[in-house]
Amino acid sequence: MGKRIGNQTIAFANPPAIIATASIVGPKEGQGPLGDLFDKVVQDPLYNEKSWERAESKFFQEAVQMAVQKSGYQLSDMQVLLAGDLLNQIISSNFAARELDIPFIGLYGACSTMAESLAMAAVMVDGGFADLAVAAVSSHNLTAERQYRFPTEQGVQRPPFAQWTVTGAGAAVVSSQGGGPRITHATIGRVIDMGIKNPNEMGAAMAPAAADTIYTHLQDTGRQPQDYDLIITGDLAKIGRDITIELLKQKGLDVSHNFNDCGILIFDESQDVHAGGSGCACSAVVACSKLIPEVKKGIHKRILFIATGALLSPISYQQGESIPCIAHAVVIENGKEGT
Amino acid sequence: MGKRIGNQTIAFANPPAIIATASIVGPKEGQGPLGDLFDKVVQDPLYNEKSWERAESKFFQEAVQMAVQKSGYQLSDMQVLLAGDLLNQIISSNFAARELDIPFIGLYGACSTMAESLAMAAVMVDGGFADLAVAAVSSHNLTAERQYRFPTEQGVQRPPFAQWTVTGAGAAVVSSQGGGPRITHATIGRVIDMGIKNPNEMGAAMAPAAADTIYTHLQDTGRQPQDYDLIITGDLAKIGRDITIELLKQKGLDVSHNFNDCGILIFDESQDVHAGGSGCACSAVVACSKLIPEVKKGIHKRILFIATGALLSPISYQQGESIPCIAHAVVIENGKEGT
Repeated sequence: MGKRIGNQTIAFANPPAIIATASIVGPKEGQGPLGDLFDKVVQDPLYNEKSWERAESKFFQEAVQMAVQKSGYQLSDMQVLLAGDLLNQIISSNFAARELDIPFIGLYGACSTMAESLAMAAVMVDGGFADLAVAAVSSHNLTAERQYRFPTEQGVQRPPFAQWTVTGAGAAVVSSQGGGPRITHATIGRVIDMGIKNPNEMGAAMAPAAADTIYTHLQDTGRQPQDYDLIITGDLAKIGRDITIELLKQKGLDVSHNFNDCGILIFDESQDVHAGGSGCACSAVVACSKLIPEVKKGIHKRILFIATGALLSPISYQQGESIPCIAHAVVIENGKEGT
Repeated sequence: MGKRIGNQTIAFANPPAIIATASIVGPKEGQGPLGDLFDKVVQDPLYNEKSWERAESKFFQEAVQMAVQKSGYQLSDMQVLLAGDLLNQIISSNFAARELDIPFIGLYGACSTMAESLAMAAVMVDGGFADLAVAAVSSHNLTAERQYRFPTEQGVQRPPFAQWTVTGAGAAVVSSQGGGPRITHATIGRVIDMGIKNPNEMGAAMAPAAADTIYTHLQDTGRQPQDYDLIITGDLAKIGRDITIELLKQKGLDVSHNFNDCGILIFDESQDVHAGGSGCACSAVVACSKLIPEVKKGIHKRILFIATGALLSPISYQQGESIPCIAHAVVIENGKEGT
């Protein structure tokens, strides 16, 4: 039984454990600085399927299967799958959920979905509604580009502030029992929209939502930035990271010493991704391959993981609407400290 | 603190109360047999907006505002909004959530979303994670038709088994305190796909998911169909209703005496909607205007409400994929009995 603290934050009474994680990525992510950390690197973006969409769903399905296998349980032990992706009607998740045959709560939070799914998995477990829950997301560069921007084959030149949608999937098994990093808090985001309309300017659009959630989280918990070994956002990339630091500075919070972004970590400058990585899978594969394992090893005692989502659709921007954004946060602590 | 019973069902320890509901619909729904029950009937499908998408979001926003107003609370008292809609990237919900400024968990369950949102709202409240939660959904005939099928202006002839997407929105305020119908159980659906590929054959595609969730719910709870005054699905309409009854009969369950469908109730035959209503809002506006108020009045002591969703996308059916479907269920009981 959890409790609310402040306006938007939940404190879990018996912080659920992340007992296993898995990540699977495409070739470009495999060539990046975190390449060796991923459980699997697939060289073919089609992954032997007949469409990129089917390939993305296969990434999703395999990430869940790997995470469950690592947890020591069977797929049939999983009581609920809380998941989503970027595609219209979250078809990657739906088709994977059909094959996985786990009771399924579909989520949509765009690139914020990994934090949303971890938060809701912790809610299900801490509330006594599930003993074992799976949080998972996927994205695919080639399915996202053609859905959100231009036909992929057209080869449109990308502006320098554009980001690169990560191809991959991440999954985490959240449990009421067992060891591992604990989810101690979740902060549910509000929709923030500062009027940006360019669907390539994701980092700038999402930064105010990230800053709002970080600020609210710290207010709700009565903590300071230095209470975290790491404050890490999902896919703000370089431009969004800098804006977030500046926005928090204006509110009297200096996060510049322990702040990073998964979209910056996943690629290096030589990979020609411009501002950095994006997509649901960006924060998911970094969390599942690097962040959560580092908390498990005690490299970090406590991190604040904030995934950020741009809630636009091609229809909404073609109709001239601005880009509403959201950021959800979870606190992940080393088990020995967190319990 | 809830508990799991059986494979897919949650029993709430302190069943959350639905303290207020609101519904708002378009002209065709207003002319239907339930016309007098809706809180508001809007005659203009554009609702004074410049696009149908903006109109849908306005329906959504107003339904939430009305439900909150009826509850006696303020919007700022609401601690979480759990909501979704049919549009790509659930833009109706996202844009409304921006205006409503309630911490927001985006859901995607296609037309199953009203049951999904009621279930997750009850999870948040019963688990102690929120005292006041809002469950809401919307759909709009003109935004859905052009997204899923053909440009609306093209005037394509609809096959006789087609359904009519309901224009409207429904919202419910779920609370840890106060009187009103109680959500006592939720059954989380699995994705079921029997291979139907025609996006007009929604009722037939969704029926196996409905039957699976009803069967599982009754197994999990050890109940019989006659333990419910009413078992009501979301938008199977005539064809899907008959298939569901037949599928359950094959499993030894006779639901024919107390089974109905919101898609059948909302329109009458003279309205030329063919098989019946569909869309997220179909089950939502029927639940919020008729079903939940009837439980409140004691007309029904206990109902099983199962919203059904077809999880296809235009991309997936253009690529030749079949239609995965899901159904989530909640038990709603008269307060005096349910607590």
